[in-house]
Amino acid sequence: MSEFLVLVTASDARELLGRFPAVGAERVALEEADDRVAAVDIAAPEDLPAWPRATMDGYAVRARDTHGASEAVPAFLTLRGAVPMGDVWTGGALAPGDAVSIATGGVVPEGCDAVVMLEYVQAAGADIEVRRSVATGENLMRPGDDVRHGEIVVRAGRRLRPQEAGVLAALGVDAVEVHRRPRAGVLATGNEIVAPSAAPRPGQVRDVNSMALAAQLRRAGADVILGGIVADDAAALAEAAAGLLERSDLLLLSGGSSVGARDLTVEALERLGAEIVFHGISVRPGKPTILARLGDKPILGMPGVPVSAMVIFEVFVRPLVWRLGGEPAREPWPARRRARMRRRTPSVAGREDYLRVRFVDTDGGWVEPVLGGSAALGTLVRADGLVVVPAESEGVAEGDEVEVMLNG
Amino acid sequence: MSEFLVLVTASDARELLGRFPAVGAERVALEEADDRVAAVDIAAPEDLPAWPRATMDGYAVRARDTHGASEAVPAFLTLRGAVPMGDVWTGGALAPGDAVSIATGGVVPEGCDAVVMLEYVQAAGADIEVRRSVATGENLMRPGDDVRHGEIVVRAGRRLRPQEAGVLAALGVDAVEVHRRPRAGVLATGNEIVAPSAAPRPGQVRDVNSMALAAQLRRAGADVILGGIVADDAAALAEAAAGLLERSDLLLLSGGSSVGARDLTVEALERLGAEIVFHGISVRPGKPTILARLGDKPILGMPGVPVSAMVIFEVFVRPLVWRLGGEPAREPWPARRRARMRRRTPSVAGREDYLRVRFVDTDGGWVEPVLGGSAALGTLVRADGLVVVPAESEGVAEGDEVEVMLNG
Repeated sequence: MSEFLVLVTASDARELLGRFPAVGAERVALEEADDRVAAVDIAAPEDLPAWPRATMDGYAVRARDTHGASEAVPAFLTLRGAVPMGDVWTGGALAPGDAVSIATGGVVPEGCDAVVMLEYVQAAGADIEVRRSVATGENLMRPGDDVRHGEIVVRAGRRLRPQEAGVLAALGVDAVEVHRRPRAGVLATGNEIVAPSAAPRPGQVRDVNSMALAAQLRRAGADVILGGIVADDAAALAEAAAGLLERSDLLLLSGGSSVGARDLTVEALERLGAEIVFHGISVRPGKPTILARLGDKPILGMPGVPVSAMVIFEVFVRPLVWRLGGEPAREPWPARRRARMRRRTPSVAGREDYLRVRFVDTDGGWVEPVLGGSAALGTLVRADGLVVVPAESEGVAEGDEVEVMLNG
Repeated sequence: MSEFLVLVTASDARELLGRFPAVGAERVALEEADDRVAAVDIAAPEDLPAWPRATMDGYAVRARDTHGASEAVPAFLTLRGAVPMGDVWTGGALAPGDAVSIATGGVVPEGCDAVVMLEYVQAAGADIEVRRSVATGENLMRPGDDVRHGEIVVRAGRRLRPQEAGVLAALGVDAVEVHRRPRAGVLATGNEIVAPSAAPRPGQVRDVNSMALAAQLRRAGADVILGGIVADDAAALAEAAAGLLERSDLLLLSGGSSVGARDLTVEALERLGAEIVFHGISVRPGKPTILARLGDKPILGMPGVPVSAMVIFEVFVRPLVWRLGGEPAREPWPARRRARMRRRTPSVAGREDYLRVRFVDTDGGWVEPVLGGSAALGTLVRADGLVVVPAESEGVAEGDEVEVMLNG
C-alpha cells in the first residue's frame, strides 16, 4: 500500500483539488436563481431605464428656462398638467416656458431635459415659480444611464445575489443559465458505526460524519445523496461507492479513524479503478485525507475523526464544491474577523494547522484556542471559528494578531 | 398625515424593531435542523463518549506496568488479544502485565487505564516490548470527557451549524425543537408596476422589489409569500395586506417612490387598523421607511427605490427577521473586511449613511464608493459591500480605515 502513501503539502493539495472541472448548466426561472452560479455572461437585453425617468418628485422643465432663477428672482413657468404614473405625457407638445408636474419614476416628457425638485417650486394656479436653476439632466436618468443595452450585468462564475436578481428582473430577464447544483454522495464505513437513531451497543458509535458533512455540503451549494453505512469490506465499499458515483459529481467516503480503516478505503478505491492523487495532507487536524479521481469525479477519503472531517471540509472540500458548481475563484473565507490570541500556541513548521478558537470577550478582540483534542466533538461546538497557522510558521505567540475564520 | 411623520434616528429604529417577539416552535428531524434556531436549551441525554475510547491505534495497558519503560529498557507485557471494533473485549479478566491490541475508537477494556501508541511497541508473538511509559488516561477518552450527561450542548437562540448537527447525532438526539421559519408576506404596489415577465408599456416598470426582497428574506431564514402587485388604491392595498398578514408573521409593503405613494401606504395602514411606529429613518439611502404594527406583527413600508429597499433590508429588516426567527442577539454583519477608502466621501452629521463600495485592488486593501445615485440599480451589482458612516460622523476621509460589510 506504501506506493500510495503520498503526503502532500496543504498548498499542493489545494492545487490538485483545483483541477476538477465544473458541472454542466441548466436553465432556471429567475425566482429560483438566487444563490445559483451563472454559467454564461448575461448581457442586458435593453436599456435601463428604458425611458428618461425622474429621480425626484417635482416638475419636468427645460433647464434653460430656469437659468438664473433664485429665491429673489424666480423663473415663471406655465404648468401644463401632470405626467401620469405608469404612462407617458399625452398633453401635447411642450413649448419653451412650459412645465409638467412629475413624480419620482415618472417618464420625463419630450421637450424637457431636467426636473426641478418640489421644494424649490411655488405653485400658483396655472403658473409656477421656480426658485433655483437646474442643469440639463438634473434629477433624471436618461435611457441606459443605469444599465446600457448589451452591457454584461452578470459574469459567468458569479453566484447570484439578491441584487443580481433585482437587476435581471428590471431588465425582463426571467430565466437564467446557471450551473447545476453539484451532487455529492456521502458514504460512511465502519463495522462499529450505527445510525444516529439507533441505540448503540457497547463499542458502537453513531454516524456523526454523514450528518455533519451533509449539512456542510448543502451550505456549500451541493445536493446530497446519503449512501448510508457500509461494513468494513473493500468489495462492499467499492460496490456502494460505484453506485453512488453514478448518480453524483463527487463522493465523500467517511471511513474509520484507524490505520486499518484507511487501508480499506485505499483497497476499495483500487477495486473501483480510481486513481489515487494523494494520501495524506500535511495539515492538522485531518492529515489522513485521501484524494482519488475516477474520470472527472473527485473522491475524498475523509478522516474518520469527526472534528478532522469537518475542518478538512471547510478548508479543502468546500472550495472544491464551489469549483464544481462553477465558481472557480471564490474567496474561501468570506466571514473573517481580526482578533488577538490570548494563549501561545506552538505549531510544527511545514504543517498547516487549524486552531479551533473562541472569543473570550464581548467585543471580540481576543480569542483563545478551545482545549481538547480533535477526538472531542465538543471543541467544534464551543468554537466560534478557526485560525490558520501557516506551514512556514512555528506557531502563534500570545498577543499576536490573528484572522478568525468564522464558522457556520 | 403629518401626525405620522415621525422621523427617528437609526439607533431608535433598531430599538423599536427589537421589540417584536419570536415566532413559535416546532419539532423537526435532525437531518432538517441545520440552519434552524433552537427554541429550547438542548441537554446531552448521555455521556459522550459512552465508554472509555482509545484515541490512538496501539495497545491498551495498565499505565503502572509501563513505568520506567524506555528504548533501552522496554517493559515486557503479555498480549492477550485484540479489542474488536464495534464491540467490547470479551477475552476475560486482565491481570497486571497484560496488554490488548486496540484501534482508534475501540473500547478500552476494564482493567486498562492507558493506551500505548503503536510506534512505541515492538510485538514478538505473545509478548510485546513497550518502549515508552504512559500516564494514566493517556491516549484515551473517559466517559463524558467530550460531552457530559446533562450538559447543555445547544443553547436556545443558537442557529444550528453542521457541528451542532454532528454532536446531536453523536448523542442520539434525532429530533429538535426549533423556531418555525418566520413567514414573510411581500406586496408590491403601484399603478406603474408590472410583473418581470411582462413587456412594460412606456412609463411602466417591472417589479424589482418583490424579487430582490424575496431573495433577501429567504437568505435571512424566512419563508416568503408573494402577494403580487396591487394598484394605487388604499382600500385594495389594505385588503390585500390583511389577507397576507393572516398567513404571515411580518409583511413588507413595497410602495412607489413618490410622496403620493407613501401617503397611500399610510392610508392603507390606517384602514388596516395598524399602529404606525415611525415614518422615516434618518438614514441614507432609505429615509422613507415606515414601521407599523398590527398586534405582534410588524409591517414595513419599504422605500420604493430598489437600491434603498435592499439596503434598508440588510440594515434593519434582516435583524428583525432573525429576531422573529428566535435569534435575538445575532451579529448583524458576519462577513466583514477591513480596507482603506480611496475617495473622500462627505456625509451629514445626524444621519447614518450606507455607502456602496467596491474593492479596487486584487488584495482587497482599498475600496471606493460606487458612483451613481440610489436610483441606479447597477450600483448594487457593481458593489462588493457597504460601509457605514455613523450618525455622529461627517464622512470618510481619503485613506481612512473602514469596515466593509460584504454582500450576499
